[in-house]
Amino acid sequence: MAAVFGGVEGGGTHSKAVLVAADGKILAETEGSSTNHWLVGVDKCVEGINDMVQRAKTEAGLDPNTPLCSLGMSLSGGEQKDAIDKLIEEMKERFPTLSRHYIITTDAIGAMATASDCGGVVLISGTGSNCKLVNPDGSQIGCGGWGHMMGDEGSAFWIAHLAVKMVFDAKDNLVAPPHDITYVKKATEEYYQVSDLMGMLPHLYRNFQKPYFAGLCKKLAEGAEAGDALCQHLFTQAGRVLAKHVEAVLPAAQDPLLSGDLGLPVLCVGSVWKSWELLRSGFTEVLDKVASSDKFKGRFHGYSLMVLKQSSALGGASLGAQSIGVTIAMDYKANAKVFYRHTFNSSQ
Amino acid sequence: MAAVFGGVEGGGTHSKAVLVAADGKILAETEGSSTNHWLVGVDKCVEGINDMVQRAKTEAGLDPNTPLCSLGMSLSGGEQKDAIDKLIEEMKERFPTLSRHYIITTDAIGAMATASDCGGVVLISGTGSNCKLVNPDGSQIGCGGWGHMMGDEGSAFWIAHLAVKMVFDAKDNLVAPPHDITYVKKATEEYYQVSDLMGMLPHLYRNFQKPYFAGLCKKLAEGAEAGDALCQHLFTQAGRVLAKHVEAVLPAAQDPLLSGDLGLPVLCVGSVWKSWELLRSGFTEVLDKVASSDKFKGRFHGYSLMVLKQSSALGGASLGAQSIGVTIAMDYKANAKVFYRHTFNSSQ
Repeated sequence: MAAVFGGVEGGGTHSKAVLVAADGKILAETEGSSTNHWLVGVDKCVEGINDMVQRAKTEAGLDPNTPLCSLGMSLSGGEQKDAIDKLIEEMKERFPTLSRHYIITTDAIGAMATASDCGGVVLISGTGSNCKLVNPDGSQIGCGGWGHMMGDEGSAFWIAHLAVKMVFDAKDNLVAPPHDITYVKKATEEYYQVSDLMGMLPHLYRNFQKPYFAGLCKKLAEGAEAGDALCQHLFTQAGRVLAKHVEAVLPAAQDPLLSGDLGLPVLCVGSVWKSWELLRSGFTEVLDKVASSDKFKGRFHGYSLMVLKQSSALGGASLGAQSIGVTIAMDYKANAKVFYRHTFNSSQ
Repeated sequence: MAAVFGGVEGGGTHSKAVLVAADGKILAETEGSSTNHWLVGVDKCVEGINDMVQRAKTEAGLDPNTPLCSLGMSLSGGEQKDAIDKLIEEMKERFPTLSRHYIITTDAIGAMATASDCGGVVLISGTGSNCKLVNPDGSQIGCGGWGHMMGDEGSAFWIAHLAVKMVFDAKDNLVAPPHDITYVKKATEEYYQVSDLMGMLPHLYRNFQKPYFAGLCKKLAEGAEAGDALCQHLFTQAGRVLAKHVEAVLPAAQDPLLSGDLGLPVLCVGSVWKSWELLRSGFTEVLDKVASSDKFKGRFHGYSLMVLKQSSALGGASLGAQSIGVTIAMDYKANAKVFYRHTFNSSQ
């Protein structure tokens, strides 16, 4: 077959695969469930990837027994070297006709490679959260991305957990909730189908499934949109802590990232960004403060929030091809769009 | 055999079993590992209990095939009705010669039944944490005890997690640590045998073991005792939040609990209390404020912290016997001792 390059976007809840030609033409796209190996284990992760890619080969009219030139995987949880080496070994052994070369990078880096080759900040808030700043020279610095046991601040899991925790704390008289909990308590009990808080325990332990747990976030977004003050508070808090991730990586930004027309480009990945209007007040409040701080006054003029129009599987495919010396033609303008621009008054 | 009553204390890390006669004489004591069914699963929980009790029968010179009159189990995680019914069903089916009757209560209630029949507050800080107020009339109210996914504030797990989180946040530039992290970072890396934070991920997810994770707390206590400011800060925070559990249940206290010579009796259970001197400043600070608040001024005169001198398996045995109409003679004075007394100036 002609040279075909595969890419995978592996999220905490959903995954995608794409096959692409060197000219950038997308040959096939498929979907699957979570391929975060921390969440589903190595076996399910590699099986899920193989299944999506093999289906894509068939969809593109290719022979499933002919390996791809390369497979670039942009995976949530794809950071720890030992773990990703193990994943690649496992794929080579179990699925010898899948691909000739493999690389694994994080979901953040795959997203960035989809949107731009000039760098910027990737701020993920999906099932989990993560932030990476990529400089024009390729140097990187991160904040977060350690999973739900160590933060995931601002993610759907975090918002859902914060909501449930507020209900527990109110019931326990341990912490007074900032607003009435009626809607959140009802939404929690309905979503998890429990009649009291004790019924939550299996969802938190024996049957814990992060994507399912995080799914409550959608109900909370609906509550916030309908005017519930506690739901709105949760998203404002999420906006604040997401902006704090940007603040955390900002000192490492090289000047070209800050001085462009768009200000700092921030690529927003993950479904929590669908609720941008709910995140907005907390998010802008924190970055306004950063911009007027002594450290950044006159240097941090503004920022643009962008969202991908293509799966970051495409960036994964591009990085995979790059690793074997092939440049896939990427139409970055078509792959991402700006949905919010902010210019600081203090920098005028 | 003469009437023999069994009791079990099931913790998040260790467990104990005791066999006792109606006159209160202890016939045998055995030990085992965690029997928290949320942590180890139902199978290991019931097998662990059976193993300890059968060993105790042999140790006491009893026939292992003769069932006990009753087995009262005081279990961490022994709260949810469906779950404990299932545990008892499982024990009856798999181990028909273990005991004729079974009851399961929480570790808090078992501890209280060991120390007193007049009520008080039980404040657990071991692997996890929990707080229960038991009134003289038997009515109860609780705060916490929902496990590590929903708090466990002030427990060894919580202290260890807070320490590790501060190291992650400092590395990420997300939150500045209140004190130098050098000791805590080194202790964390040595305890979990990792060379960087990425190496922590298996300990947090794939190989997560709450008791092992919580074990870092002991190293942090050593650091605090040696003068490390961040370690000391962690225990002060733990002291504060443990006292907040007492504050949370206090409004439900009936007057006799507050007006006795000892002030409010607080039974402190779990190994974190070995570090009382480290918890003390945070703990007393919070309760001083409570005592001088409008709500409790003149009503909350002081408190006494007590520690058990016997396993709460004994209280479990007592409650188990009670459930079949037998009263075991308990020497409460010998079972618990006061280790700290506090009288508020404001109440003079």
